[in-house]
Amino acid sequence: MKEIELINDIKRRVGKLPKAVAKGIGDDCAVLDMGGDDYLLWAQDMIIEGTHFDLKIDKYKDVGRKAVAVNISDITAMGGKPEYVQISLGIPSGLRQTNIDALTSGIFSILKEYNIKLLGGDTVKSDKLVIDISIMGRVNKKKIALRSKAKSGDFILITGPVRNGKKEHLTFTPRIKESKYLMESFKVNAMIDTSDGISPDMIRICDESKSGCILYEEAIPLDKGLALKDALYYGESFELMFTMGPREANKLLMKNKKGMKFFIIGEITSNKKERIIVDKKRNRTKLKLEGYKHL
Amino acid sequence: MKEIELINDIKRRVGKLPKAVAKGIGDDCAVLDMGGDDYLLWAQDMIIEGTHFDLKIDKYKDVGRKAVAVNISDITAMGGKPEYVQISLGIPSGLRQTNIDALTSGIFSILKEYNIKLLGGDTVKSDKLVIDISIMGRVNKKKIALRSKAKSGDFILITGPVRNGKKEHLTFTPRIKESKYLMESFKVNAMIDTSDGISPDMIRICDESKSGCILYEEAIPLDKGLALKDALYYGESFELMFTMGPREANKLLMKNKKGMKFFIIGEITSNKKERIIVDKKRNRTKLKLEGYKHL
Repeated sequence: MKEIELINDIKRRVGKLPKAVAKGIGDDCAVLDMGGDDYLLWAQDMIIEGTHFDLKIDKYKDVGRKAVAVNISDITAMGGKPEYVQISLGIPSGLRQTNIDALTSGIFSILKEYNIKLLGGDTVKSDKLVIDISIMGRVNKKKIALRSKAKSGDFILITGPVRNGKKEHLTFTPRIKESKYLMESFKVNAMIDTSDGISPDMIRICDESKSGCILYEEAIPLDKGLALKDALYYGESFELMFTMGPREANKLLMKNKKGMKFFIIGEITSNKKERIIVDKKRNRTKLKLEGYKHL
Repeated sequence: MKEIELINDIKRRVGKLPKAVAKGIGDDCAVLDMGGDDYLLWAQDMIIEGTHFDLKIDKYKDVGRKAVAVNISDITAMGGKPEYVQISLGIPSGLRQTNIDALTSGIFSILKEYNIKLLGGDTVKSDKLVIDISIMGRVNKKKIALRSKAKSGDFILITGPVRNGKKEHLTFTPRIKESKYLMESFKVNAMIDTSDGISPDMIRICDESKSGCILYEEAIPLDKGLALKDALYYGESFELMFTMGPREANKLLMKNKKGMKFFIIGEITSNKKERIIVDKKRNRTKLKLEGYKHL
């Protein structure tokens, strides 16, 4: 069974949601309306030894950092500000104190960097190291960037050059600075983080927005050494991929904000069945939903 | 390293919390003030194959149920109403579809029973089955039952007879009905659920309330077959243990509400160093913090 099938099965069983839930399953975060000007954002991402990292190679400190960073990225993908986390740790019995210290120091250093407060969690015994983090944040109701709000004619943009997920999956910087800049100065329609790869993540925007897309292979900015197929299907790059009106997109690029880079890589279309990538020679290839993460 | 040492280390590193956080680490739930009459409650509990359940004996359906029930119990222990969950599942590659179905049906049946909505989560590949749930609920600000509000002279009460955690840890019913009744009709000062055992959980109330306690061995109601030492130190019984003024406690017992049972098992004292249990012959034994859950 693939992850996607399990998720679809779960989605079907959720049932009717109360009015306070602006968005349940189907975006980077759940969105709750608690009154006031802001939405509450809430996401949860788990990483497990052997699946997401290898302790023979990877450092405990980097693993702790990653567990937090992937969750920050989820809040960032809605245009939000991360505020609080709860952390569940599954820790092997024999784990040495120096390794536990490295892990917690990786966690706390990134929490401090982004001024996120730890409010609770759980610690349990486990064969393999498990870190599951639940994150809460907030976003102005008028500014929230949902996957479902892409409009036909929007340009598709991405931060980058797209990082090499195979190399940087533990050490990437969440695109929180870029997200904040976009929210403050521009009108973003839809947004997602490229955790699973440009192709599946783009299809998610199209599915939620009931639209199609055309990506231009040549326009996708790749970090040195990164293969296009890995940018499309490996993921773990945690860029922000978003859509906005063409004028807004041009305005964004022309501002050329120091220390940030945005690239126009395609456009949203009204044809739900058209989710394609076009190469130099104008060959059209269908985008696939698959990422590397299967159960 | 024991769980308690890791938690203490983590607590030290949390730093100053913003005003909106009414309670961080140190209670059954984190408590957030989002404005309005209610607090937002937020907890997270993880269960892992081999540590909390054994799939050679335990049924997938019961495991799914338990993962949710322990989280409901955390909200209940603050006097709150559970509303939303996010669920992270770590699933072994070869797990059969019938077992996945049993697991999710266990999860959804208890969610439905208590009208709790699933808003998100994560699914990842794992060697062992892992279920980590983050739960959100709410409680009236005037009614919230914190661990820190026990007063010297309070009686200590417990729901029960205390269930046998070794037998019922998968199938117990969270004491949500009792919690609701207490909140609606009585003034509870402090409350906790006995997930780790009466002794460590009582000490947690004393620590947070800066007080002592005397428990009376004979007064502790035990389910048939349950040894006192397991009620004290094994836990997994998920009773509500709470404190209230003596008059309030007597009123509660005399009401003798149908279908619920409450027992007075001791009293809160002002001597922080006195955390003891007294037997029939008036022998005094010091309560210990240890439960069975070590890293």
